[in-house]
Amino acid sequence: MTGDLLIRSVRPWPSGRDAPEVDVLCLAGVVSSFGVGLAAPDGVPEVDGEGGVLLPSFTDAHAHLDSTRLGLPFRAHSAGAGLAELVDNDRRNWRSAEQDVATRATFTLGRTIAGGATSVRSHAQVDVDSGLERLEGVLAAREAHAGRASVQVVAFPQCGILRDKGTAELLEAALLAGADLVGGLDPAGYDRDPVRHLDVVFGLADKHRRGVDVHLHDTGSLGAFQVELICERTAALGMRGEVTISHCFALSTVDEDRRRQLVDLLAENDIAVTTVAPGVREPLPLRELRREGVRLGLGQDGMRDYWSPYGNGDMLDRTWQLAYRNGFRDDTMIEMCVDVATRGGASVLGETGRGITEGSRADLVVVPGDSVTAAVMDRAPRTLVVHEGRVVAADGELL
Amino acid sequence: MTGDLLIRSVRPWPSGRDAPEVDVLCLAGVVSSFGVGLAAPDGVPEVDGEGGVLLPSFTDAHAHLDSTRLGLPFRAHSAGAGLAELVDNDRRNWRSAEQDVATRATFTLGRTIAGGATSVRSHAQVDVDSGLERLEGVLAAREAHAGRASVQVVAFPQCGILRDKGTAELLEAALLAGADLVGGLDPAGYDRDPVRHLDVVFGLADKHRRGVDVHLHDTGSLGAFQVELICERTAALGMRGEVTISHCFALSTVDEDRRRQLVDLLAENDIAVTTVAPGVREPLPLRELRREGVRLGLGQDGMRDYWSPYGNGDMLDRTWQLAYRNGFRDDTMIEMCVDVATRGGASVLGETGRGITEGSRADLVVVPGDSVTAAVMDRAPRTLVVHEGRVVAADGELL
Repeated sequence: MTGDLLIRSVRPWPSGRDAPEVDVLCLAGVVSSFGVGLAAPDGVPEVDGEGGVLLPSFTDAHAHLDSTRLGLPFRAHSAGAGLAELVDNDRRNWRSAEQDVATRATFTLGRTIAGGATSVRSHAQVDVDSGLERLEGVLAAREAHAGRASVQVVAFPQCGILRDKGTAELLEAALLAGADLVGGLDPAGYDRDPVRHLDVVFGLADKHRRGVDVHLHDTGSLGAFQVELICERTAALGMRGEVTISHCFALSTVDEDRRRQLVDLLAENDIAVTTVAPGVREPLPLRELRREGVRLGLGQDGMRDYWSPYGNGDMLDRTWQLAYRNGFRDDTMIEMCVDVATRGGASVLGETGRGITEGSRADLVVVPGDSVTAAVMDRAPRTLVVHEGRVVAADGELL
Repeated sequence: MTGDLLIRSVRPWPSGRDAPEVDVLCLAGVVSSFGVGLAAPDGVPEVDGEGGVLLPSFTDAHAHLDSTRLGLPFRAHSAGAGLAELVDNDRRNWRSAEQDVATRATFTLGRTIAGGATSVRSHAQVDVDSGLERLEGVLAAREAHAGRASVQVVAFPQCGILRDKGTAELLEAALLAGADLVGGLDPAGYDRDPVRHLDVVFGLADKHRRGVDVHLHDTGSLGAFQVELICERTAALGMRGEVTISHCFALSTVDEDRRRQLVDLLAENDIAVTTVAPGVREPLPLRELRREGVRLGLGQDGMRDYWSPYGNGDMLDRTWQLAYRNGFRDDTMIEMCVDVATRGGASVLGETGRGITEGSRADLVVVPGDSVTAAVMDRAPRTLVVHEGRVVAADGELL
C-alpha cells in the first residue's frame, strides 16, 4: 500500500563508519522496523541506500519561495543598502521575471525536496502591489508537490502593514485563500508602530485560529522589547506553541542577563525561533535555546532573488553554513546543527513523530558519508529522499 | 610546442551572460590572443570551454598539505579547546594516519588543482617530533604535481621555536632541504617571546635569502605590536615584498585608528596578508587593505585534519565562503573576492603576469556559470584548469 517501502543498506544516525548497514522497513508511511537482510513483504518496493547515512529528512523552516530566481538566468544584484531599498528593489523588478511565481516557486520547491527537505514553511509576500498573486504562486507550488512535501505558507506583509495601507485586509484575504499562518515584519523598526502592527497580526491569528511567524530583524533593546510584546500576546491569546520569531537578532545583540530573560520568555511561551545562519550578524545562542527547550529551526531565506544571490534550496549546504558560522569543529556540535535542520525545524512547524526510530514518520533522507559530520562536510547529492514512505527524489534528482 | 593551447568558447571575466563566447589562443604558456573562430595553428591542441566563465586560475595562498586527511576515512574531531591542545592532539595522532604524508599531500594537492588552483603555498610542520618528515611529504607532493601547479613550501614551526628546543636548527635544515620560506607562529601568544622568535625567523630568512610567512592569531594590541615588530624587521633587512602575515586577526580587533596605522605599515613595507575566511573571527578589512595596496590572498588552511573537519581543497567554495562571511551581495564585491582568490593570492606568492589579458601567464580556469557571481554561487565542477598553457584538469577531475 501507499507508504510501504523497504530501504536497504543504510547506517542510521549516529552512523559511524563501522556501524553495520541495516535495512529499514516503512509501512503506511511510518518507520516500522530495522534489521539486517529484512525480507520485503509482498508488494513492498525496495530501494538501495548504498550504505549512506540515514537521517530524518530536512525541514526548511524559513523559505521565500515567491521571490526565487533559481534556475533562471542570473541577474546582477540591483538593490541599494537597507531594508526599505531591498523592498523597493524587489517591487520594481519581480514582475519582469522570465517566469511567473507559480513556475518559479514550483521549480525551487522541487530543488528543495531533491536536497532532502520534505517539510517547508514558506513566506509569501502579501502587499498592495502584488495582492495575492505571490501567495497564489506558492500555493500552486505546494499543490504541484503535494505528494512530495508538507508545505506551510505564511501570509507575509513584506512591505509593512501600517505603512502599506490595505495590507491588513489582504492578509485576511490570504488566510481565506489558503495561507496557514499570519506573518509580520519588524513591527517597530520597519512598520514604525510595534503595538498596532502586532495587534493586527495577532488579531487575525486569533480570529482565524492560525499560527504566527514574525520576521524580527530589530536588534538590541528595541528587538528585545518586541520579543516581550510577542510573548505577552501569545500568553494572552493562549497561543503557546503557535508562534515563531524568525531571525530574532535581539538574542545576540543584548547583554547576557537580558538574553537569558528573553530565552526564558520564549521557553515559557513555547515560541519557536528560526535562523538562516547569516554571514555577518552574530549567530543565535543555539545551545542555550535548545537547552532551555526552545524549538529552533533552520531555513534558506530567499533563494537567488532580488534580495540576495545566496540560497540554493540545499538544506544540507545550509547546515554546513550553520556549523561553519558557529565555528563548530566537534562532531557533537555539528550533529546538533543537523538536528536543528531536521527535527528542530519540524518541531517549529508543529510536526511531531519525526526521527529515525520505530514509529517515526517515514520522512527520511539518505546521504553519502562516512559519518553524519562527514556527510555535512561533503554535501554530496542525496541518495534517497523519502516522504511518508514514498521515494520522492534519488541521486539528487526529483522523481 | 609545450604551453600551446586553443581554448574554444569561453566568456572572459567580466563575462556577463550576453557576453559573446570567444576563443583564447595560448602560446608557450602565455595568453596570446582572443577572437571568434580563431584558427588553430598547426599542432596546437584545442579544448572546449563550453561557454563557461574564464578566470585566472586560483591560488591557495595558505594551505597545510602536510596534515590533510582528505580522501581517508573520516575521523571524529578529537582535540580539546585552545591552540596548545590542537597542537598536542595533532602530535598524538598524525603518525597513525592510514597513509604517509607524501601520499596524503599528493592526493589533496591533486584535489586542489582539480578545483582550479594552479598556485599553492603550503606550510609544512617542522618540529622535534616530526623532524623534516612532513616537509619531505609536501616536497614529494610538489614533485608529483610538478607540471600541474607552482607550489611554495613554508618551513612552519607549528609547535613554537623557543618552547620546542631544537626547532631553529630544524628550520634551517628545512630550508636546505627545499623549503622556500621560513614560517613563524604567534611569537608572543604561543611562543612567549616575540622578539627572540622573530629574530630567529628573520635571521634565517636573511641568512638564506628566503621569504617569511608568519601565522599571527594574536588579537588586539598584542597582535598589533607584533605586526609592528614584523614591519620593523622587514624594513631593517630590506625585505619589502618578501613577507606575509597569515590570519592577522589584529586588523579586525583593534580600533579604527589603530587599524589604519597597521594597514599603512603593511602597505609601506609591502607585507602581504592571507585569510582563510574564518567562521567566527571578524573578517579582515578587505576593501581597505586592497585600497591601500596591500597584497591579499585566500587559503584553505587545514583540510579535514586533526585540527578541523573543514577545508576541501576547493578554492571556488572558499571564495563563496569569503563573500558570504563578509555579507557581500553586490556583484562587484563578490568579484573582488574572486580577485583575492586568484590574482590576489598569486601576488602574495610573488607571481607576476597573472590575469586574462594578452601577455598573461596561461594559468586559467573555466567555470560554468551565467556570470562570475553566478559561478561563485553555483560552485559547479571546473570545466577546464590550465597551467602554463597545458590542460591539467577537466570536468572536476585531475588529468
